[in-house]
Amino acid sequence: MDNEKVSRIFSKDKFALASGITLISIGDGEASASVNVEEKHYNGVGIVQGGLIFTLADFAFAAASNSRGRTAVAVRCDISYIKPVKGGTLTASAKEVSCGNKISNYRVKINDGTGDLVAVFNGTAYRKDDNNGN
Amino acid sequence: MDNEKVSRIFSKDKFALASGITLISIGDGEASASVNVEEKHYNGVGIVQGGLIFTLADFAFAAASNSRGRTAVAVRCDISYIKPVKGGTLTASAKEVSCGNKISNYRVKINDGTGDLVAVFNGTAYRKDDNNGN
Amino acid sequence: MDNEKVSRIFSKDKFALASGITLISIGDGEASASVNVEEKHYNGVGIVQGGLIFTLADFAFAAASNSRGRTAVAVRCDISYIKPVKGGTLTASAKEVSCGNKISNYRVKINDGTGDLVAVFNGTAYRKDDNNGN
Amino acid sequence: MDNEKVSRIFSKDKFALASGITLISIGDGEASASVNVEEKHYNGVGIVQGGLIFTLADFAFAAASNSRGRTAVAVRCDISYIKPVKGGTLTASAKEVSCGNKISNYRVKINDGTGDLVAVFNGTAYRKDDNNGN
Repeated sequence: MDNEKVSRIFSKDKFALASGITLISIGDGEASASVNVEEKHYNGVGIVQGGLIFTLADFAFAAASNSRGRTAVAVRCDISYIKPVKGGTLTASAKEVSCGNKISNYRVKINDGTGDLVAVFNGTAYRKDDNNGN
Repeated sequence: MDNEKVSRIFSKDKFALASGITLISIGDGEASASVNVEEKHYNGVGIVQGGLIFTLADFAFAAASNSRGRTAVAVRCDISYIKPVKGGTLTASAKEVSCGNKISNYRVKINDGTGDLVAVFNGTAYRKDDNNGN
Repeated sequence: MDNEKVSRIFSKDKFALASGITLISIGDGEASASVNVEEKHYNGVGIVQGGLIFTLADFAFAAASNSRGRTAVAVRCDISYIKPVKGGTLTASAKEVSCGNKISNYRVKINDGTGDLVAVFNGTAYRKDDNNGN
Repeated sequence: MDNEKVSRIFSKDKFALASGITLISIGDGEASASVNVEEKHYNGVGIVQGGLIFTLADFAFAAASNSRGRTAVAVRCDISYIKPVKGGTLTASAKEVSCGNKISNYRVKINDGTGDLVAVFNGTAYRKDDNNGN
């Protein structure tokens, strides 16, 4: 099973594109995405806005959770902010924690360019009964 | 106490600006923000990307948590998605749940243009010892 | 629709019973439970253990989420602790935030005997396809 | 640094004791706890009550977060239920995700006697300025 179809769908995500976020890889139960921090990503006090970090993590989570052959929709997600981000490249790596018949869980770590952990994200998805082609 | 200074800081949030998000109001322990859904906000399957909804809610939370005279930084946030969004105007309303000496909690409801609840968000902040001018 | 059957099931919850937790009321999409703080509820530093407060809230959430005619199983829950509890009676009130076909969300407020909010809880449930008799 | 003092405090946790929960180990930034499932731990439909699993995880989290020389108080915790538990021994292992000056984060995995993951827990603590003797 390759993940061509999921990759195609995610490459058409307009909010991710507008935010400069790129899908790096997608495999069975995992995915990664990255973003190069730009001027437009800062908040009013000069650090990277939490919404960008969440969007990056959520994107990796969505790709990973849709890699299992059925459409998965986000039910609930949380993010813990660990280190303020000033610049560089951020990478989000999503890994599967569990994949039941109806519910799946993913853990996403977000690292900066020096490898430091800047945030952790946990996503829960509901799995539809369809076949999404993967 | 007005919240002029906080308003000023939030009006300079570049990621919110780039995402089309506007601060509507800010009061003691509360704030609201809105966004008109545009083409650039959609994900790969034609519904509004979760990252936009989170960013909207997080923005209202950040404004509300910084309205209390001290700088508040986000520690942990979660969002539950209730109804897929196809378009229209989204409004996020943040209200204070608690404001202790070090930790404060906010609840944010996100509604669409018909008044339907599309998501709920809970944000926890750490309050610094400074005076942020509000 | 009364909620007799759900009440019956919840009155047989052995961990709630062992913990001194009582179901107070159950209605459509809501429920409340309470506990009188006893010596056995304290942690090692003399305040009420967080696990008891969670168990109380979770019990009210479970009753509320099972009041809608189908079995609901907890998927994910979180609790924010607001005020340390030294004693008295704790009451948890669960209210429905959303009830979709597959996923429902509940908010539970936990108050002490003076009416102060001591914690807030958010529970997400998956709804099975059965008919649970309510 | 041993963790004798923290061990002593946690061995006096009355709700953990009443629930049959035992601290297994405590080290720098980590701790584990276990419980043998008994009749009193079941809910009204014959599976182990979520409150017990949360209490076990929370206990390991509290021990781990207090192993760093300062008192840490729980701010917010969440749990995702992965597999229903019917019996046997449950073990919770808490590991540090981050430990900042004011806020620390822990991840707790809860496994059953066969090694299966039954739940995951994320705890956020606020660190006081004291010296707790560890």
